[in-house]
Amino acid sequence: MTPTITAFERSPDRGKGLARDMRVRWALEEVGQPYDVRLLSFGEMKEPAHRALHPFGQIPTYEEGDLALFESGAIVLHIAQRHAGLLPADANSRTRAIAWMFAALNTVEPPIVERTMATLLERDKTWFDERQRMVEARVRDHLGQLSDRLGDADWLDGAFSAGDLLMVTVLQRLKGSGMLDEYPNLAAYVARGEARPAFKRAFDAQLAVFTAASTA
Amino acid sequence: MTPTITAFERSPDRGKGLARDMRVRWALEEVGQPYDVRLLSFGEMKEPAHRALHPFGQIPTYEEGDLALFESGAIVLHIAQRHAGLLPADANSRTRAIAWMFAALNTVEPPIVERTMATLLERDKTWFDERQRMVEARVRDHLGQLSDRLGDADWLDGAFSAGDLLMVTVLQRLKGSGMLDEYPNLAAYVARGEARPAFKRAFDAQLAVFTAASTA
Repeated sequence: MTPTITAFERSPDRGKGLARDMRVRWALEEVGQPYDVRLLSFGEMKEPAHRALHPFGQIPTYEEGDLALFESGAIVLHIAQRHAGLLPADANSRTRAIAWMFAALNTVEPPIVERTMATLLERDKTWFDERQRMVEARVRDHLGQLSDRLGDADWLDGAFSAGDLLMVTVLQRLKGSGMLDEYPNLAAYVARGEARPAFKRAFDAQLAVFTAASTA
Repeated sequence: MTPTITAFERSPDRGKGLARDMRVRWALEEVGQPYDVRLLSFGEMKEPAHRALHPFGQIPTYEEGDLALFESGAIVLHIAQRHAGLLPADANSRTRAIAWMFAALNTVEPPIVERTMATLLERDKTWFDERQRMVEARVRDHLGQLSDRLGDADWLDGAFSAGDLLMVTVLQRLKGSGMLDEYPNLAAYVARGEARPAFKRAFDAQLAVFTAASTA
């Protein structure tokens, strides 16, 4: 059964692949699962029909037969548990790969999103520069620890996993900040993720949506 | 095999049960799994021995035979997948309960933690009051949406699950803010979680650690 995901009709990042449907598209491409996409305007995302699927009125969602899911992390985990390719076979290794999924979303991502939110919502405030330096110190704390753990390995724990997939998408949010380049092994890690054919197919698919919307 | 978790030797919340070991203790109590606790000072948390277990130098960790885990969400999921009591048996219901775990940690928690961080780190800044109102508006957005979804149900999706366990612990961080009381069904939801015998046993266990440290 072909699953259907939702994505922005016109992504606010202008096709840079930072919207959370990218994570799901990438996971589906890694496991070779075709999918359909239903595009939503910002208005449609807040309407009852979509809120029934996603209580917080966001994208992506995932529909597959009787199953309706929200939260990109949960959708990626579901895909990884259903198909080979995103989680190791050994039980302990599998559990550790899932731990890296939570680390990406619950430890590394929050201050990175906080930095982006401030850029969007607080740039004209008197406190912006001083406070942004404080937020960036929190981001750097995590980057330093993550860089130490990664060392010269290709991926966080053995073969590429759903944990790496989420961590790479989280770190991509720092592009343009210069911070990633302070940790050359992390910059190379992100580049390694982006070089995967499945990433490229997913990226091109989300970019095509933005390009079509812009020329319509 | 009895697992060993780590917790603060002296919790910064003074035994209020807001440290993340509480989530793991509660999950273990729900499934009836005894556990050992290794207490760590703030210094020990940053040392190489602990950083080998937890790359970000935090608590809790979870050790069980050959398996070493970090991230409270991942540990709770591991416990829920190994034992009956925290996830429904039906596959789709189970996947949705896991989605609520991610929603608690990746959607609802970040602005709530941001509010707490500001209280700790930015209270003496000129911008504190104005900015805290902005953060609280983001928290209220999620609370309103969560309140709408919960309605008059006891739990988020059928029977009590690991998703409820994490969501209750996330909402508890708002105690004392008055915000939870603006959504009576959410306040009742948190109270319902706290009334569970397993919650009480976990709470008492973490409080006993703080009390012992304070009277030592």
